[in-house]
Amino acid sequence: MSFELTILGSNSALPTSNRYPTAQVLRVPGRCFLIDCGEGTQIQLRRNKINFSSIQHIFISHLHGDHYYGLIGLISTLNLMGKKGDLHIYAHSELKNLIQPQLDYIRGEMTVRPVFHPLNFKKPQTIFETKTVEVISFPVKHSVPTCGFLFREKPKSANIRKEKIKEYNIPIANIREIKNGADFLTSDERLIPNDELTIPAPKPRSYAFCTDTAFYPPLAEIIRGVDVLYHESTFLEELKELATKTLHSTAKDAAEMAILSGAKKLLIGHFSARFKKTDRFLEEAKQVFENTEVAEEGRKYSF
Amino acid sequence: MSFELTILGSNSALPTSNRYPTAQVLRVPGRCFLIDCGEGTQIQLRRNKINFSSIQHIFISHLHGDHYYGLIGLISTLNLMGKKGDLHIYAHSELKNLIQPQLDYIRGEMTVRPVFHPLNFKKPQTIFETKTVEVISFPVKHSVPTCGFLFREKPKSANIRKEKIKEYNIPIANIREIKNGADFLTSDERLIPNDELTIPAPKPRSYAFCTDTAFYPPLAEIIRGVDVLYHESTFLEELKELATKTLHSTAKDAAEMAILSGAKKLLIGHFSARFKKTDRFLEEAKQVFENTEVAEEGRKYSF
Repeated sequence: MSFELTILGSNSALPTSNRYPTAQVLRVPGRCFLIDCGEGTQIQLRRNKINFSSIQHIFISHLHGDHYYGLIGLISTLNLMGKKGDLHIYAHSELKNLIQPQLDYIRGEMTVRPVFHPLNFKKPQTIFETKTVEVISFPVKHSVPTCGFLFREKPKSANIRKEKIKEYNIPIANIREIKNGADFLTSDERLIPNDELTIPAPKPRSYAFCTDTAFYPPLAEIIRGVDVLYHESTFLEELKELATKTLHSTAKDAAEMAILSGAKKLLIGHFSARFKKTDRFLEEAKQVFENTEVAEEGRKYSF
Repeated sequence: MSFELTILGSNSALPTSNRYPTAQVLRVPGRCFLIDCGEGTQIQLRRNKINFSSIQHIFISHLHGDHYYGLIGLISTLNLMGKKGDLHIYAHSELKNLIQPQLDYIRGEMTVRPVFHPLNFKKPQTIFETKTVEVISFPVKHSVPTCGFLFREKPKSANIRKEKIKEYNIPIANIREIKNGADFLTSDERLIPNDELTIPAPKPRSYAFCTDTAFYPPLAEIIRGVDVLYHESTFLEELKELATKTLHSTAKDAAEMAILSGAKKLLIGHFSARFKKTDRFLEEAKQVFENTEVAEEGRKYSF
């Protein structure tokens, strides 16, 4: 099973009539992650036919309203639907204080239980993991404490070639170590090299989400070689000065981060409301990094 | 100038892919009122090309999330736009406590100043007035304290017939009392009756907003003879039991309130998400009260 990303919102803070503030859903094997939760996220979930109950983990990059004002509505709806159990929210520690009064107000009827996990804005940190997937938060460069998120599969063992088990009479006890790279010594003392016995594991998939942030070269090392990089591009180069002042990026900045980090594909978003269309963002980014797409509401990407 | 009502949201609590939670804008001469402010209101304002800065008075019926979760986003946006001055919010006194932490969080950058006016849930009360218009809140019957709102023009004076001023040589000093209903005594002591001297004032316009509420006969007297009545109809009669249990109304209930109050026109809304289409609501209401329309997103009504 692949990673599947759905864009729910691609806009920055001021509303437009056709774009929503930031929200994305990433499905990985066995999990469904919500990344940021701007106002209107629950309507966008409905439109994109995403089952509300599948969301158990929500990652909030920072506490500007266009990244979290949809959270209380979503929690309220999960509750009205009678969803039970923990809802894990990874965010700045202050988030709990900001929405607690509203949570308390519906508390009498609450079935879902929000569990807040404070982010570390000083250094990268693994904030969630299963046997197959891990999520790493990392600080980016914005006007308030902000984290990006890296979602990646854990490295897998190689697969053993079944015909070789028979050919060399390999005992079951040896299979695990062969999958992990060991050679095999046959009963007649021939050493069979590992690469004859195995098919290499597929490269782990990965997705990096970077918003809101200025162009920030230290990110490159953390997100090195990701399959897909989502990087904000609030402005065009013609507004570079404003981007610098507000600690946002231009489309060119985003493309340069794709180059610098060795990303395979770039998605750009978080567009300023002053731009009604996004084609100039795409044009500007593609001049630097060809494999760029615009993150538009409703688009899905599998990788 | 007439009253102009724009429907921004017609849905009840659970989200659907094509309807928004409750919000409406009512323009009256010289003012623009926002009534309820469900999640996504600011996007709907944008889509309906309503100038954010024209909104200085917001009326919140009650504190279920689908009626106020859009408020913080709207305030934040007004602030980002640099709007200055007071923003009057008429709501349950608890609202301030619910959103204050989020307001405080953006306080450093706040230019707009929310002013909270607590509603009276015991009896009708005039909560806002100008020389020409008044807004009256009145308790309705729901599971939490909830108010409806009556927006009405104040009675106007009659207009004097200009040709009569000349004909009877009426001094300027007498004109005001004639407009207010006085007869006129000419210099040769003839008594001219008022109705010969004046054209009656147009009947004051009025609009009543009633959500969320069970069918509640005492409302009829308060909203007697309104031009337009918006009354919730969350359910159809086939779910009457659920309506009763949750203190909501059916389409038939809404229509009966229109009859009982002598409303000239009925708008129904606040539809349960279980109904994808609204045609059966319209059908049910029209069987009782013919002049009914469905409050759909983007529809405008002038009266």
